[in-house]
Amino acid sequence: MEYALADHQYGKAETRLVRVYRDTDQHQIRDLNVSTTLRGDFADAYSRGDQAKVLPTDSQKNTAYAFALEHGVPDIETYALTLAMHFADEIEPVHAARVEVDEYAWDRVQLSGGDHPHAFVRAGQEVRTTTATVIGRGTEQRVWVLSGLRDLVLLKSTGSEFAGFLRDRYTTLAETHDRVLATSLTSRWRHAGPDADWNAVNASIRQILIERFSTVHSLALQQSLWEMGKAVLAAHDEVAEIRLSAPNKHHFLVDLTAFGLDNRGEVFHADDRPYGLIQCAVQREDAPAAGPAWDTPGSFAG
Amino acid sequence: MEYALADHQYGKAETRLVRVYRDTDQHQIRDLNVSTTLRGDFADAYSRGDQAKVLPTDSQKNTAYAFALEHGVPDIETYALTLAMHFADEIEPVHAARVEVDEYAWDRVQLSGGDHPHAFVRAGQEVRTTTATVIGRGTEQRVWVLSGLRDLVLLKSTGSEFAGFLRDRYTTLAETHDRVLATSLTSRWRHAGPDADWNAVNASIRQILIERFSTVHSLALQQSLWEMGKAVLAAHDEVAEIRLSAPNKHHFLVDLTAFGLDNRGEVFHADDRPYGLIQCAVQREDAPAAGPAWDTPGSFAG
Amino acid sequence: MEYALADHQYGKAETRLVRVYRDTDQHQIRDLNVSTTLRGDFADAYSRGDQAKVLPTDSQKNTAYAFALEHGVPDIETYALTLAMHFADEIEPVHAARVEVDEYAWDRVQLSGGDHPHAFVRAGQEVRTTTATVIGRGTEQRVWVLSGLRDLVLLKSTGSEFAGFLRDRYTTLAETHDRVLATSLTSRWRHAGPDADWNAVNASIRQILIERFSTVHSLALQQSLWEMGKAVLAAHDEVAEIRLSAPNKHHFLVDLTAFGLDNRGEVFHADDRPYGLIQCAVQREDAPAAGPAWDTPGSFAG
Amino acid sequence: MEYALADHQYGKAETRLVRVYRDTDQHQIRDLNVSTTLRGDFADAYSRGDQAKVLPTDSQKNTAYAFALEHGVPDIETYALTLAMHFADEIEPVHAARVEVDEYAWDRVQLSGGDHPHAFVRAGQEVRTTTATVIGRGTEQRVWVLSGLRDLVLLKSTGSEFAGFLRDRYTTLAETHDRVLATSLTSRWRHAGPDADWNAVNASIRQILIERFSTVHSLALQQSLWEMGKAVLAAHDEVAEIRLSAPNKHHFLVDLTAFGLDNRGEVFHADDRPYGLIQCAVQREDAPAAGPAWDTPGSFAG
Repeated sequence: MEYALADHQYGKAETRLVRVYRDTDQHQIRDLNVSTTLRGDFADAYSRGDQAKVLPTDSQKNTAYAFALEHGVPDIETYALTLAMHFADEIEPVHAARVEVDEYAWDRVQLSGGDHPHAFVRAGQEVRTTTATVIGRGTEQRVWVLSGLRDLVLLKSTGSEFAGFLRDRYTTLAETHDRVLATSLTSRWRHAGPDADWNAVNASIRQILIERFSTVHSLALQQSLWEMGKAVLAAHDEVAEIRLSAPNKHHFLVDLTAFGLDNRGEVFHADDRPYGLIQCAVQREDAPAAGPAWDTPGSFAG
Repeated sequence: MEYALADHQYGKAETRLVRVYRDTDQHQIRDLNVSTTLRGDFADAYSRGDQAKVLPTDSQKNTAYAFALEHGVPDIETYALTLAMHFADEIEPVHAARVEVDEYAWDRVQLSGGDHPHAFVRAGQEVRTTTATVIGRGTEQRVWVLSGLRDLVLLKSTGSEFAGFLRDRYTTLAETHDRVLATSLTSRWRHAGPDADWNAVNASIRQILIERFSTVHSLALQQSLWEMGKAVLAAHDEVAEIRLSAPNKHHFLVDLTAFGLDNRGEVFHADDRPYGLIQCAVQREDAPAAGPAWDTPGSFAG
Repeated sequence: MEYALADHQYGKAETRLVRVYRDTDQHQIRDLNVSTTLRGDFADAYSRGDQAKVLPTDSQKNTAYAFALEHGVPDIETYALTLAMHFADEIEPVHAARVEVDEYAWDRVQLSGGDHPHAFVRAGQEVRTTTATVIGRGTEQRVWVLSGLRDLVLLKSTGSEFAGFLRDRYTTLAETHDRVLATSLTSRWRHAGPDADWNAVNASIRQILIERFSTVHSLALQQSLWEMGKAVLAAHDEVAEIRLSAPNKHHFLVDLTAFGLDNRGEVFHADDRPYGLIQCAVQREDAPAAGPAWDTPGSFAG
Repeated sequence: MEYALADHQYGKAETRLVRVYRDTDQHQIRDLNVSTTLRGDFADAYSRGDQAKVLPTDSQKNTAYAFALEHGVPDIETYALTLAMHFADEIEPVHAARVEVDEYAWDRVQLSGGDHPHAFVRAGQEVRTTTATVIGRGTEQRVWVLSGLRDLVLLKSTGSEFAGFLRDRYTTLAETHDRVLATSLTSRWRHAGPDADWNAVNASIRQILIERFSTVHSLALQQSLWEMGKAVLAAHDEVAEIRLSAPNKHHFLVDLTAFGLDNRGEVFHADDRPYGLIQCAVQREDAPAAGPAWDTPGSFAG
């Protein structure tokens, strides 16, 4: 035969699930978006439409709900790992399972008398993420866990330069020693192993990212990212690698001289597009191999 | 002539403007989306393409930037009023000017040593809004100010019922005495006059809305909204009217009995669409007339 | 009592419904987004949480589905009217019902041998819209029907000027006698009566709007809109009024002189924001009153 | 040193560019979204903030505009390749350049007398895509070209089954031998070489994808995708590999039996989330290596 099924995977994407803990009057909630992806012995579904080895995506959704009740969601990493291991261990044709979970944060409502026990307000647009990948079963089983965040929007109103750059025929940009630097950060980090105090580690990393973005005097967004990534690895031995993807959300100083006004870094146009896009990976030199950890469904077709 | 130009208005929408205050090392920022709309003697532009009385929307944008420098943005209400009055006072063909401003909130970055002086993190998806409408000039001039918020996402994990409702041929809904109640609130309130301590009043109203949503034992979202609106009017004499528009973001209890699991209000499916949409206006009985305060460009063509 | 429930309405928004006609091998589909809104004797739900007169939004959704089967969807206007009349006629506390329907267009798949009988491809991003409003019942009943479209994206690469405009202190815009004119048109038109050959009338109006946008040599987007609206009324006696809302999607000529290039209207930057926003209503001089036709839930809270 | 800059790239994303051809009265337009990404000797920008080798993203944007004038846009593949080769050839520190282009389609406005010469209407939501990757320069230079489309929304109202699937503890799905099958297809294909009649080849592939989706009696979306991919390779020797990513946009039959109605495949609820996600790659057995063709910035941080 001339054509090969070179690669394939399938799953249920974006199951929107809220888990409420109501064991005491002080409720807790976990607000999740769960996507499951299976790889394995599914070629017959493609070549012949034979579903005998295909676990319906509807069953995957049901499992996501049932596990949220049975096993709970102490943190999204544990939940994702438990769910991925289930598919890898229990569903015979599955060779590898990946579970991606986004979590939306909620704050407790604050009243004059303190926390409200069961009312919550969405904390922001920022999303906490995880991806758990499990390959094989039994003693052969291998596991990778990514944690991360996206849409963490940061801005410095000074302390950022951009100068001394390469110039070609098409370069017209003026150098600047004081600009607004703003980004909507996406970052994921790969854990060295499958166990950690996930909530604590991730909260610490988030704070380090914000702190380094803020305090590094930036000669380039590239430099800020490198310092942010390095600081995370320095503080957390359990992190093998961190990747950062940062749009440079341009804030252009508005020229008001035609109106007799001297705009010294006070009024900016926040532009939508285009934007710079700066990306880097910082890795511990003795990091274990990444394997398939970064091969998400979102990147399958480029 | 058989056809009339029954209504018309024009302006510049969504000028994205960031104002930085850098008078001291402790910077402040105001992140705005500004839309200006003019009404007046512009019929010739429609009927004959004659622009002689038309102030370009580009000039309106320039004015928005220039005013952010010259007059600053102590709060969006003052900024919007100043800008709207300028158009009404200074541009001869203008009979009425409306300025709508959205503001995106930023928090200062918190470090172990305290606030960072010039680094900020976006506070959330919630947007603060205002609309200032100015009609006429001189002693004839009349002014309306709305303040508001949108995308304030709230959730109660208990303390909400829905029962005793009207039933018709198409009713299959089960009654419930314990459900999740969630909404993404849009609210605007109309001030009785053009002066107030805007930042303080609006912060107080936001807290009242959250507090009442949380503490009212809800027999219907309708009831929650009424109690929220009433409490705002009770606390703020300077508010003449408040309108609330609240999607009922359904959280459906997932039936897990097929898997031998008893889901007692712990696992929900957060559905996207459809959603209930509940709306009400609560008004002080002696409120001044609303005039054109609510006639925004967004509602022009239905 | 000091505070009044000045206004209120509720309903089910965005019920996503696909109706398949499969009476012959040549299937037809109607892909709809249905929103229902009821006004009436619902004050007790607000003031006391008493639902006795409240038809659940869930029942409204069920009715939308059931009517799509029972009564079908020959066109969205007939469907919306039928549904709105049902609520006004059959649900005792309802004083007024409004049904808004968006329709997404699909084309039949074309094969070498002709139309495929049951495969379809989405025709575009443009949306056809209707709003049917019914007040009262029996001989007192009054009805309004709007039809419309939104997201009809049009562009002229020449034949558009903007010059001779009013100048103030903040005007820096250069005049132009040849520019790109582009918009994403929203238009709604109000029918004089409740009966028409809806599909044919609306298709004709859509074509007139496109034709006039294209062929009018534009001295201003205002002028184009007026000519478009006038032409619709001239061709369709059954239309009482048309409203047009048109963003001026700016295409800025890119200055390439620094690179020794002469850009004579060939390369443009398509900007996102800000944009001009031009709006007008053209009305037949003997048009019947609009009543509540334009008061949609989307404009309730400004 | 303990930490390595394991990977990095940067560029300018989403430059929105419209190219008008106006050599004759019959204008043509190309409406593009251009993103450029450079890899190379940029480590110093990260480690020390030294920009000496960094070509500003602003210059990349200028180049995109200038090339649209100088070299034109006969098709997006040629444009992307020319631009990528420029960066790889002319900018010394660049080791590899990638240019991604999205194209939005426009139809000429049709009037009774035929085509309008310079008025256009957006053809749909579907986007045509390309990615050109160039590594090295001179005789060492290697090139990959992907073409594709996304948001091609397809629906079959019959001719689709889903049965005989694997069942586990969490399976509740009923088998069906007649369902609605709908997707919003993303597909990219990798060309065997850097030359082709791009517009013709891509139009042919698009038609094949639609035709096979329509005519294959589907036992699973997997099977449809495989048949679609295979047919493309069978018809186009110049295509080495095709990848397809297809959400299964669920259309649930609405149960209307409670209202005495028998819904035989006529009324469906079109659900938003969750959705199945089916992906596969079909490759010619003698396909050249994919190299970095699929490593897009969108997949950098997972």
